[in-house]
Amino acid sequence: MVDVIHAKRAGNQLTDEQIQFFVDGVVSGEIPDYQISALLMAIFFQGMTSEEQSKLTMTMMKSGDHLDLSDIPGVKVDKHSTGGVGDKTSIPLAAVVAALGIPVPMISGRGLGHTGGTLDKLEAIPGYKVEISEQDFIEQVKKDKLAIIGATGNIAPADKKIYALRDVTDTVDSIPLIASSIMSKKIASGADALVIDVKTGAGAFMKTLDDSRALAKALVGIGKGVGMQCMALITDMNQPLGDAIGNSLEIQESIDLLKGNGPADLEKLIVDIGGYMAVMGGKAKTTEEGQKLCEDVIHNGQALERFRAMIADQGGDSDVVDDPEKILPQAKYKIDLPAKSTGVVSKIVADEVGVASMLLGGGRQKADDKLDYSVGIMLHKKIGDPVNSGDSLLTIYSNRENVDDIKELLYNNIEISDHAEKPTLIYETVE
Amino acid sequence: MVDVIHAKRAGNQLTDEQIQFFVDGVVSGEIPDYQISALLMAIFFQGMTSEEQSKLTMTMMKSGDHLDLSDIPGVKVDKHSTGGVGDKTSIPLAAVVAALGIPVPMISGRGLGHTGGTLDKLEAIPGYKVEISEQDFIEQVKKDKLAIIGATGNIAPADKKIYALRDVTDTVDSIPLIASSIMSKKIASGADALVIDVKTGAGAFMKTLDDSRALAKALVGIGKGVGMQCMALITDMNQPLGDAIGNSLEIQESIDLLKGNGPADLEKLIVDIGGYMAVMGGKAKTTEEGQKLCEDVIHNGQALERFRAMIADQGGDSDVVDDPEKILPQAKYKIDLPAKSTGVVSKIVADEVGVASMLLGGGRQKADDKLDYSVGIMLHKKIGDPVNSGDSLLTIYSNRENVDDIKELLYNNIEISDHAEKPTLIYETVE
Repeated sequence: MVDVIHAKRAGNQLTDEQIQFFVDGVVSGEIPDYQISALLMAIFFQGMTSEEQSKLTMTMMKSGDHLDLSDIPGVKVDKHSTGGVGDKTSIPLAAVVAALGIPVPMISGRGLGHTGGTLDKLEAIPGYKVEISEQDFIEQVKKDKLAIIGATGNIAPADKKIYALRDVTDTVDSIPLIASSIMSKKIASGADALVIDVKTGAGAFMKTLDDSRALAKALVGIGKGVGMQCMALITDMNQPLGDAIGNSLEIQESIDLLKGNGPADLEKLIVDIGGYMAVMGGKAKTTEEGQKLCEDVIHNGQALERFRAMIADQGGDSDVVDDPEKILPQAKYKIDLPAKSTGVVSKIVADEVGVASMLLGGGRQKADDKLDYSVGIMLHKKIGDPVNSGDSLLTIYSNRENVDDIKELLYNNIEISDHAEKPTLIYETVE
Repeated sequence: MVDVIHAKRAGNQLTDEQIQFFVDGVVSGEIPDYQISALLMAIFFQGMTSEEQSKLTMTMMKSGDHLDLSDIPGVKVDKHSTGGVGDKTSIPLAAVVAALGIPVPMISGRGLGHTGGTLDKLEAIPGYKVEISEQDFIEQVKKDKLAIIGATGNIAPADKKIYALRDVTDTVDSIPLIASSIMSKKIASGADALVIDVKTGAGAFMKTLDDSRALAKALVGIGKGVGMQCMALITDMNQPLGDAIGNSLEIQESIDLLKGNGPADLEKLIVDIGGYMAVMGGKAKTTEEGQKLCEDVIHNGQALERFRAMIADQGGDSDVVDDPEKILPQAKYKIDLPAKSTGVVSKIVADEVGVASMLLGGGRQKADDKLDYSVGIMLHKKIGDPVNSGDSLLTIYSNRENVDDIKELLYNNIEISDHAEKPTLIYETVE
């Protein structure tokens, strides 16, 4: 192992045998943590070639279980987001793509910090089960074209161990390590095609366009290297996506979107990504054609019906689709935040809005924190919107009456100026 | 601790509080090994300022016991070598400087790999004890001006833990880590002045003059930073120092030197370093004057008498001074290595000669290996010496009859060419 560390420390490309030795030793526990962390830090400084990243990804993937989805006919298409505040995109998007007849077998995660993850949001729906067997998952995707569940079995145990160490040794933000971690799990989940939404900006893991582009290239390179159809979009996460932040609120916004009443930015992003997925899934010849199909299933109710079917099949109360406010947990207090001046909203710092939602109980500070699904924030103004002094900028959904701390945090992170443009939503694609 | 790693990873200077927190956590065991090793690797890549190095050194020093030598009158002068093959310099040098009336309280170490360390060599003298109490050490230095012992008490426990981790995480060759490790122990040993011999070349830890200079500057900077008189010499370790490699052989060579019959390079180095120590100890106004005094005590027998007194006081058989071959362990076989061609010796790769001595039993491969004091190698030709085919290049001292492996190793690492200069012995000083 000292030789492996030495090779990487010197900036050399690790051989396949060295990577295999490392991953085997991590899983077996034969390589002590202090040597793993020394190698991770050396990788942080020296990087990895695309060959190394592919090999590391596949070796971590093969260190655990992986799904065989060959029983499901058609091109199975998955979507992954690197995560952001208000990013409920996967939920309505999966229903939209499924409505085109494309199987979407989606294995998703929970959130730590900020707001909940996709599974947390779905669990706001009473009865919805995210833990179902592999066989039931496959049957459901065959029937509904759609299932969103948590990981089944022992997915990429090497990644689990390495991820835990990265968190405590300040080696989280290394692009080769991020890319191999994401892709080992995504490849293990068995889809044929994958679109990755790489978020960029203040509320994203990657704060700059350069870093986001580097990560997108690494992810797509690994995916293509193993024969997957794979592409990425780099999209904005300076302000929250859509208007809703919080678990119930985001499910409600997802339902609104599937009824054709979603916020413009969220619908644009879903239609855009959906267009690429439609092409990958063989249901459209061009992205534009695919996007048109996505718009259709949003506005003719077919996507909503896919969503309803999935909820019912996974044990959830599918009446939520018709009457979300009745079925979803609701907060006790709704408190508006009035604008203090007149002008145009020029800044809404996404991650601080996420922190506000977390502090209300909507996100986890520690891994075993219980979520309060009902709380969150509903934005009424986004960047570029004109505002008059006294207008409600947003509503705080809370189960405690005094939210002065939340108000102060939000005031400190929302700016009103004389002029501001609507920000770019989709910066570029990486194919 | 993640914040400390993050700061160093980003190339920032660690604060005094961060260094204190780190060293405290290492000693208490509260910081896990994987975080220590991540920080060590970040230090390898980002380096440390001289302020950080001084603070780390002093904090590691204060993590354990340190000697109070204030009872000993005069300026206490110590010498340290970064180590090399055939480097017995400290032993005769300490006696030479003591003979000038300067107290030399020397706390030394053992060797791992290559040949033994100073303590191992002294233990080749039957009865010589390196473990004596602090009080006896002080009394002996008062009386003889000289003692060479192993560490007493719990010296720099933080360094002990960090050193063990560096060895298995490939973070040994980081100049700030080397420098703080050496200096924390040297400062704990309580001397007022220190000369450091930084070896450079194939047989040294620092292979290039640039690296050696950087280490020398770091060491001297730390020493001066804590108010010590401190300087360094950068000296050659491309070929072994002197002619003898092996524990008994090196003691015998040390005695020869103290009788005025030592090899030229060893005497030159001892006189040169001794000159600086004489000035530091207040016994000479200039280095040249100090060097002259050193030559005197070598050739008038006064240094030999210091050595005899020290051996007797530490329980050793001081007759070794008069009849070394009778008292020191002797090897069973003495096997010459004849030159295969005529010319000038142009290369003797120091570390490989050290490996040969180790393979004969004279050095340790593992920390608990027992040493065979009697074995080793006696060089008859050094770089720049003319040689005729068939001349003995060296004699192998062995307790096994078949030394074909050793011969092959040595032939592969000694070259004879048409022409070669005597190499530079002392490259430069750093003050």
